[in-house]
Amino acid sequence: MNSKPYSIGIDIGGTNTVFGIVDRNGKVIAKNSIKTKGYPDFKSYLDVLHEALTKLIKEHDAEGKIVGIGIGAPGANYHTGEIVNAANLNWGENLPIAWLVSEKFGGLPVTVTNDANAATMGEMVYGAAKGMKDFMMITLGTGLGSGVVSNGKLVYGHDGLAGELGHVVVDKKGRSCGCGRKGCLETYCSSTGMVRTAKELLESSNEPSVLRNIDPEKITSKDVYDAAVKGDKLANEIFEFTGKMLGEALADFTAFSSPEAFILFGGLMKSGDLLLNPTKKAFENHLLFIYHDKPKILVSQLNEDDGAVLGASALAWESENN
Amino acid sequence: MNSKPYSIGIDIGGTNTVFGIVDRNGKVIAKNSIKTKGYPDFKSYLDVLHEALTKLIKEHDAEGKIVGIGIGAPGANYHTGEIVNAANLNWGENLPIAWLVSEKFGGLPVTVTNDANAATMGEMVYGAAKGMKDFMMITLGTGLGSGVVSNGKLVYGHDGLAGELGHVVVDKKGRSCGCGRKGCLETYCSSTGMVRTAKELLESSNEPSVLRNIDPEKITSKDVYDAAVKGDKLANEIFEFTGKMLGEALADFTAFSSPEAFILFGGLMKSGDLLLNPTKKAFENHLLFIYHDKPKILVSQLNEDDGAVLGASALAWESENN
Repeated sequence: MNSKPYSIGIDIGGTNTVFGIVDRNGKVIAKNSIKTKGYPDFKSYLDVLHEALTKLIKEHDAEGKIVGIGIGAPGANYHTGEIVNAANLNWGENLPIAWLVSEKFGGLPVTVTNDANAATMGEMVYGAAKGMKDFMMITLGTGLGSGVVSNGKLVYGHDGLAGELGHVVVDKKGRSCGCGRKGCLETYCSSTGMVRTAKELLESSNEPSVLRNIDPEKITSKDVYDAAVKGDKLANEIFEFTGKMLGEALADFTAFSSPEAFILFGGLMKSGDLLLNPTKKAFENHLLFIYHDKPKILVSQLNEDDGAVLGASALAWESENN
Repeated sequence: MNSKPYSIGIDIGGTNTVFGIVDRNGKVIAKNSIKTKGYPDFKSYLDVLHEALTKLIKEHDAEGKIVGIGIGAPGANYHTGEIVNAANLNWGENLPIAWLVSEKFGGLPVTVTNDANAATMGEMVYGAAKGMKDFMMITLGTGLGSGVVSNGKLVYGHDGLAGELGHVVVDKKGRSCGCGRKGCLETYCSSTGMVRTAKELLESSNEPSVLRNIDPEKITSKDVYDAAVKGDKLANEIFEFTGKMLGEALADFTAFSSPEAFILFGGLMKSGDLLLNPTKKAFENHLLFIYHDKPKILVSQLNEDDGAVLGASALAWESENN
């Protein structure tokens, strides 16, 4: 049993890379960030990351006390340790990031997965799903991300790319999705999905709404939230519809792995009961009878600012058991 | 490591209970059956089962060579060892069958699960999924049963009732299902679903078909098959539609656990390519791009006559690792 007290979490976002030192209780001892883009190649980015992280480790007297590094990044594959389609970061087609980072950090174990799976691990190790063996994490942000835990293990699947529940089709004749298909869940249940719902409702009805004072091309999910808390009927309908689509989908997801709970995470959850209540209602109404009153719908307990780093760091603890 | 060479599989169906002695290679050494119904209570049923099974064990010199007993039964819960809603078998509400059978058989380990999960274990231990860590089994019979394997383990879920993919809603405004909801997958993809499709197509079109010679209330999926192999256009449309619904659903299922393969099993698979080809076509067309050309769609290699007993027996091998 390794008894080093810290792990490193690195969350590689499209704009910033946030990294931190985390203890076994999920306390972020220290964190910092660098820009993700603007380097000639991955090597230059890694040089900057290495320098900044080494500085942080020294400042907090953590040298020799790190069990491993966990990295969350879009398109990262747990099995291969690669980022697939890293081209939009100018890092080539398939980047063997786990190997490169481990080499740079003197052979520390490095585990990678996509950002949604990392958040799921964070929830299991430090958050609302602590002690749960079967749960699903749903991240409601710009898109809809997800992670599935079954028998106490993250479901990575045969190719390492499992858990893309944002792309389950909930309406075959529904909205066009960026993936090229129609009716994917994330075209309804995400901040961009809510904005699409807003535009559709504003066009199809004559109902008065403060949202009509905003240029339809510039409406955000925050605008919808602000209107809804002020009692705007149309804004509330947008939340009702979003929650209905989400609750119905969660009911279907239950048939797969009969989770103890769904943990909802991400920017959209700042709306609290506005989204949660219609979600729970549709969920219970739509659930197969054998599952009634069983799976809980919970909101993440992870601090959203720290969530990504915590999730990535949670991966590193797993490496000491392998 | 236990080195006893045999396990016992018991498949409790609504009409017959089939049981057999199985070796580690999946060879059914001997099997027999008794009626499931017609006893005053479970104790009387168990007495008859015990007598018949003990006779089989003695005849095949298997005394003291049995590692354990696996039972597959509708509504059986792996975690609790109970059959839930056993009322339609006149066995009460919740029957602690694992405990009762173990006691009757001198304390042999007894593992239970529903029939679809048992078939899934059979496929993993002896069949087409041998060596696979991530796959899904879909059983196409009167209804649609399923079992999900992830990280090499059957997904039982928090309550032991995971894997009810027949009740994933594929059309919210679709066909009424026996579960009280609408549009469940098994109302389309099962022998009863195919018969419903046949009736719908016969009513909604004027297309000539040999199926019009049969009383619509008496059409079976076998009639549809017989017509289709003779080139009947409407019968072929029924298979096309069934395959399309199934392939689209499997594509959605892939987003959960990114399986190495879907294994199709059950009476409907006797139709071979008639169902398989449209299923594969719809599957590839509907799949999220990251999964293209990855999951295989395979037909079970288990002998259908032995499948249920093999599946149940596969559960018993697992018990020696616990």
